[in-house]
Amino acid sequence: MKWSQTHLYTLKEAPSDAEIPSHKLLVRAGLVKKIGPGLYTYGNLALRALRKFENIIREELDSRGCTEVLMPMVQPRELWEETNRWSEMGAGLLKFKNRNDHWFCLGATHEEVITDYARSDIKSYRDLPKNLYQIQTKYRDEVRPRFGLMRGREFIMKDAYSFDVDQAGALKAYESMYQAYKNIFTRLGVDFRIVKADAGNIGGSQTHEFQLLAEAGEDHLLVSDQTDFAANIEICPAIDPEPPAQLNVQAQPVEKFATPGLKTITDLSKKFSISEKELVKTLFFSANEGLDSKDKSLKAFAVLLRGSDEVNPVKLKNLLGMVNPPLMLTEEEVREVSGASPGSCGPVGLKIPVYVDHGVASLKNFICGANEDGFHLKNVNMGRDFQATKIADLRMARAGDKCPESNGRLKSFRGIEVGHVFYLGTKYSQKMNAQYLTKEGQLTPIEMGCYGIGVSRTIQACIEQNHDADGIVWPAPIAPFDVHVCLLDTGDRRALELIQQLGAQLKAQCYEMFVDDREERPGVKFKDADLLGFPVRVVLGKKGLDNNELEVVERRGKAVHKVKAEQLSAQVISVLQKLRQGFA
Amino acid sequence: MKWSQTHLYTLKEAPSDAEIPSHKLLVRAGLVKKIGPGLYTYGNLALRALRKFENIIREELDSRGCTEVLMPMVQPRELWEETNRWSEMGAGLLKFKNRNDHWFCLGATHEEVITDYARSDIKSYRDLPKNLYQIQTKYRDEVRPRFGLMRGREFIMKDAYSFDVDQAGALKAYESMYQAYKNIFTRLGVDFRIVKADAGNIGGSQTHEFQLLAEAGEDHLLVSDQTDFAANIEICPAIDPEPPAQLNVQAQPVEKFATPGLKTITDLSKKFSISEKELVKTLFFSANEGLDSKDKSLKAFAVLLRGSDEVNPVKLKNLLGMVNPPLMLTEEEVREVSGASPGSCGPVGLKIPVYVDHGVASLKNFICGANEDGFHLKNVNMGRDFQATKIADLRMARAGDKCPESNGRLKSFRGIEVGHVFYLGTKYSQKMNAQYLTKEGQLTPIEMGCYGIGVSRTIQACIEQNHDADGIVWPAPIAPFDVHVCLLDTGDRRALELIQQLGAQLKAQCYEMFVDDREERPGVKFKDADLLGFPVRVVLGKKGLDNNELEVVERRGKAVHKVKAEQLSAQVISVLQKLRQGFA
Repeated sequence: MKWSQTHLYTLKEAPSDAEIPSHKLLVRAGLVKKIGPGLYTYGNLALRALRKFENIIREELDSRGCTEVLMPMVQPRELWEETNRWSEMGAGLLKFKNRNDHWFCLGATHEEVITDYARSDIKSYRDLPKNLYQIQTKYRDEVRPRFGLMRGREFIMKDAYSFDVDQAGALKAYESMYQAYKNIFTRLGVDFRIVKADAGNIGGSQTHEFQLLAEAGEDHLLVSDQTDFAANIEICPAIDPEPPAQLNVQAQPVEKFATPGLKTITDLSKKFSISEKELVKTLFFSANEGLDSKDKSLKAFAVLLRGSDEVNPVKLKNLLGMVNPPLMLTEEEVREVSGASPGSCGPVGLKIPVYVDHGVASLKNFICGANEDGFHLKNVNMGRDFQATKIADLRMARAGDKCPESNGRLKSFRGIEVGHVFYLGTKYSQKMNAQYLTKEGQLTPIEMGCYGIGVSRTIQACIEQNHDADGIVWPAPIAPFDVHVCLLDTGDRRALELIQQLGAQLKAQCYEMFVDDREERPGVKFKDADLLGFPVRVVLGKKGLDNNELEVVERRGKAVHKVKAEQLSAQVISVLQKLRQGFA
Repeated sequence: MKWSQTHLYTLKEAPSDAEIPSHKLLVRAGLVKKIGPGLYTYGNLALRALRKFENIIREELDSRGCTEVLMPMVQPRELWEETNRWSEMGAGLLKFKNRNDHWFCLGATHEEVITDYARSDIKSYRDLPKNLYQIQTKYRDEVRPRFGLMRGREFIMKDAYSFDVDQAGALKAYESMYQAYKNIFTRLGVDFRIVKADAGNIGGSQTHEFQLLAEAGEDHLLVSDQTDFAANIEICPAIDPEPPAQLNVQAQPVEKFATPGLKTITDLSKKFSISEKELVKTLFFSANEGLDSKDKSLKAFAVLLRGSDEVNPVKLKNLLGMVNPPLMLTEEEVREVSGASPGSCGPVGLKIPVYVDHGVASLKNFICGANEDGFHLKNVNMGRDFQATKIADLRMARAGDKCPESNGRLKSFRGIEVGHVFYLGTKYSQKMNAQYLTKEGQLTPIEMGCYGIGVSRTIQACIEQNHDADGIVWPAPIAPFDVHVCLLDTGDRRALELIQQLGAQLKAQCYEMFVDDREERPGVKFKDADLLGFPVRVVLGKKGLDNNELEVVERRGKAVHKVKAEQLSAQVISVLQKLRQGFA
């Protein structure tokens, strides 16, 4: 393709709302253009990258017997009522009435629609297993869309759904999709980790995330330095690197002491020279679900952690069987349940449930708030001075914690979630009456799994991971074009002939060529070639042609190969083949 | 692909809401499944047909220098306000507020978004011409979705938009797209006509529709029997086959006569033995736009036609410069403006504008209502007894009318509109300030055109045109598979080997094979093969293999070729090549 014959405009400046490098590069390279918050038009280059990625996905899924379908984006309320997600999904699910006054939503995910599709066909164990997928536009009404395609409102997803006779079958399907995803991201040539994760409100028990590593990633990952254990911090078990010293100390009598103006753990730690690890902080949350399924009113509860630790809301959510993480109480609500402001609270005398992190359970004679403004207690002991409703792992894990599966330690990474596999069990099939007849003639709910890949998000994540100061460095398998020809003198017949030859050779090998034939200075062309980031650049200028010494430049690492015109095609193809075989 | 490894269920019965053959076949062949009114999930076979059609479109457009992009389906209100279509588009444009209380709509068409996209890039005449297109899901909130994909709510469209420096450039772009569309539908191998049409509320002056001929088509087409003139009845000029006799009759005095109980033209014609052609009927409409752009209140007007003619609302709309066709007055409103009920109305004494069809203008001494219940007037003459506001072509054309471009006559066809090309001029660019700098430095609005193909609708239209009593007869270029193998004995090793050989040979020629490997009786397999309608069927049964006489059956026409096993691949490929070269 020639630049002059397409619609492509690069920008020198990134828009002011672009915070991370990949977002800036997407816009500067003309890959996307914003038409509203979280809404983008994909330019031709972005579409090419999307298509290439989609084809990799299709190849891997089709080869595993998955069947591609295409479901509607506009979905009737009735289906979502069957699973109760019409209300559970919250404001992210965009709902509207049509002209006939019927309610619909824009599909943010398709469990309901696919389960409805499958249940009308699947009657018997003979119809199973099945795996259906689609690549489709979805909409999630993000409150504050940001980071370009990373957290947009409209986005492209691949979602697959497996249907099996029993759990063993479903886990086999899970394993197969896990492997498919591993192949897909390996073929992309990107650096990724597969981590244990939380299922969110999709439901299901077994679940893994596929995370592309990148500094700007929204997800915090912890990875073992000894095994292949890896987990999203949301669910990573927190294990102290050193087991708690078994203190054979006597419980001392509780003493109240004045702590005027000391409101934070850091204040206390400094004032009394006590390690934050030995102080206890008390946090307050509310849940109007899970704790008691009949009573929907607000329920407060307290959480005790060491002063040095951070609470993990997802662990709380899972401990209490909630659909969404609980909310923290406001200062006023805290005063209502404890009698004091948040800086002076503690567990002694509370009338609400108290959940205690393991780290606190091993402390003796500790200091905490007295539930009286400006006062703390010392020598507080669990069991004697207050009762734990439950002792559990409630803190955030962190780098340096012990690996849950070995004696190794955890290391910290940032990641961008690009894929997710879930084992769902019968959560949807039970609610939606998706049943099949077993060999024995028993009506039984179908076992399901669901499997997502953020297609448009992956394109940006690839850029986030693969760029340098000059622009994008496309992973070769999804580069919009393989070769970028900088034609410096658009009238030079030698150059035009070479381009024709090169184009034909590349086409024969299924590589695609882009020719910058604009009337621009060489510097502008080189800058744009770097910005667009196709894997191989070929420079055709008068001087090189006169001396029969042409330049073939690899975008990643900028290695320059000097070649004669007659070797040009061979050299370019050899570099491309090297890239195709693996990440250079 | 093997049937056992995909998700495909055929139905014996069509759903009760399926009125036309193609809708029934779509559902029975498992191509689509309804999830709500006008909302369908596409099964794998439908998706394959869609993809093949999309690729034909892409090839034709890309080869003409069009650039593919992808625009969002959710679009901010602000863009639609710029062109005033936020209100003009009516209830078919689905509008909703998101969680942040901002208004959006679901894209029913993308003129606003693409004009916004282009205006931010196109600065100078050097940036022109451009042609951008997308293949994308659209939504139109049909009041009463019907006929399956033909009039659905969610549908797939290809929409292209051209941008040029001047009208000559825009008309060149129009001509190029006209030719591209002609190629696309010719390559499909379907019977279609290109007809002049009305621009609807997209705007623009020059426009053609691409119509697939089919009895169930919603559009009525008139085609010359002598030239290539063809038009949608909506805009087809109505010319009487015989010119009116120049009656040198004297105007007679008007007489009122009683016509108790005679309410229709037919009643009058019978009672007084006068041809319906010589009676005049008076219709009443209202417009709250166009007639007077300042006054938005309801404006009534009358239309006079010969009793034998039907009014054409689109001609009225265009005559009055309205955006949508005018509405007929209710009986009560008619009484308000005429003083009589609709059966007894006429032009004499009316205080509202009277538009007169050419057919009436040539009548003398005619009969019409007296604007008094139960009375008519005879010997009414235009000019003397009432004044025509305007004389125009206001009737529906019909078969037998004179061809407007020759001495031929018009023939009548039914068609399904699958494509539409519009010359838009500067309608959108002026309103949206999409301007470029001419060579002379003048800021000038960009000349535009827009070009649509109903992608999902075309798939159904192909079936509507190509089916028989047994099922679908796919046009070869978009058949989901090329070859349907009925494997009658799933354990026969000879058959399995043949399938493997055939599959390899077909793949080498880029043909795709579908194998019915279900444990079903031959009759069931043959019926399903007919229903699914892939171009070539191969029957592999014990008897044929024993006798080395296999059957290759062409779906269209059911021609049977008996071949030996060793000639099977060659025979199948030869039939397919014949189909690929042109409609058999």
